[in-house]
Amino acid sequence: MAVRPVETDTTSQTAHLLSLEELRAQLQATGEERYHHKHPFHLLMHEGKLTRGQLQAWALNRYYYQSVIPIKDSIILSRGPDPVFRRAWRKRVVDHDGDATSEGGIKRWVKLAEATGLDPQMVRAGQGILPATRFAVNEYLNIVRSRTLLEAVASSLTELFSTKLITLRLEKLRQYYPWLSEGLDYFEARLYQAPEDSQFAVNYVFDNAKTRAEQELAIQALRDKCDILWAQLDALYFAYVQPGWPPPGTFRIEGS
Amino acid sequence: MAVRPVETDTTSQTAHLLSLEELRAQLQATGEERYHHKHPFHLLMHEGKLTRGQLQAWALNRYYYQSVIPIKDSIILSRGPDPVFRRAWRKRVVDHDGDATSEGGIKRWVKLAEATGLDPQMVRAGQGILPATRFAVNEYLNIVRSRTLLEAVASSLTELFSTKLITLRLEKLRQYYPWLSEGLDYFEARLYQAPEDSQFAVNYVFDNAKTRAEQELAIQALRDKCDILWAQLDALYFAYVQPGWPPPGTFRIEGS
Repeated sequence: MAVRPVETDTTSQTAHLLSLEELRAQLQATGEERYHHKHPFHLLMHEGKLTRGQLQAWALNRYYYQSVIPIKDSIILSRGPDPVFRRAWRKRVVDHDGDATSEGGIKRWVKLAEATGLDPQMVRAGQGILPATRFAVNEYLNIVRSRTLLEAVASSLTELFSTKLITLRLEKLRQYYPWLSEGLDYFEARLYQAPEDSQFAVNYVFDNAKTRAEQELAIQALRDKCDILWAQLDALYFAYVQPGWPPPGTFRIEGS
Repeated sequence: MAVRPVETDTTSQTAHLLSLEELRAQLQATGEERYHHKHPFHLLMHEGKLTRGQLQAWALNRYYYQSVIPIKDSIILSRGPDPVFRRAWRKRVVDHDGDATSEGGIKRWVKLAEATGLDPQMVRAGQGILPATRFAVNEYLNIVRSRTLLEAVASSLTELFSTKLITLRLEKLRQYYPWLSEGLDYFEARLYQAPEDSQFAVNYVFDNAKTRAEQELAIQALRDKCDILWAQLDALYFAYVQPGWPPPGTFRIEGS
């Protein structure tokens, strides 16, 4: 579905199969290079330098990402080979959509957006989000639909890095933006949800990538997923920080 | 395929069907508001203020867009209802892929990229393009695959505005970047290809949108296509003009 230039990897045909430790090391190195923990927008956030309006733009746009996650996971569910896999993966849909005992991640994100001062109806309608947000997030759907199940699973592996980032973010949001404190349930929940998910996904990738070439495809899927996260922050920075040019028809910060 | 927040249009249920003139006027107004002729990256280009490196980044990234156009048109071909429609639409694939008598638009774009000083092999491989370019362009494929044929056709209507922009661009490129003059065949060809295409598409949309609601969907498809073009220039500007932060793993301007 997604058209993507194939990166030439001449080593993967002959190279040895990575051990679990080696695979983990390569995934970690990919995150170190490409995960959005280093993005300038996050650096500003964690230094307390974002305005309320900029945090609104972030919460509004990232809502679109959050809202698509259980759709993405439902696509993976629909491609799951057996009940054991689907039972494990189903947890992710429940985590985001909720059940009788839990409100779920999407609703928690709306609470965060409300804490920034946004109208929750506008957030749920995706009113004013950046087209670049939509394009990046929709690419995540393209990936889980059009690539192998192995790559679809591997694209979730940014969760390997999220716990550390969220721990830092919770500390910094409480420190610099105390008026947001009513809206942090989403991140609190992710602290215990994500590690279990990423452990399952790493093991799945290791067990199901039978050749080095397949392992390289899985690593590439993680790289592409990192690009999807990074691009969302690039677009936010361009529109709302510097030079500060939101595209036609998108959210404008009040007073700007 | 593409997930997109539906814009609420309460008027379209009861409003009258637009005449051909009214439809044209609404399409024109959409272009005036959203087409990328007003984008700051193009303004810099037309003022002669882009460096060779910035023009390289533009040519490299836009190559990906060019390379996907005949794939996009082949999808529309595959959904075409009858030989008359497909025969008319097939022209677009020929225009870009070439035939025995013409090299085609993709090859012409490579010549433009070469004139900027890029290695044509790197261009064809899409090496170093911005992820945001890929995401925006792939969304064009999502649209022509997942929406109605009417909307797929309507999304091509940016061609209504391209002749004016290309006429200006040819003049300015010759004036400010004379070293590019060997690479302008692509634009010369589009001057006579695009008007015929857009005339067919406008007539198709007018003949096949049977309700005002369908006319509004067609206008929305044009708006979304404008966003796809605009987002590509936002990403170029952010990466290579201001603040000038290309994402990890992408093209770097020499000496930067």
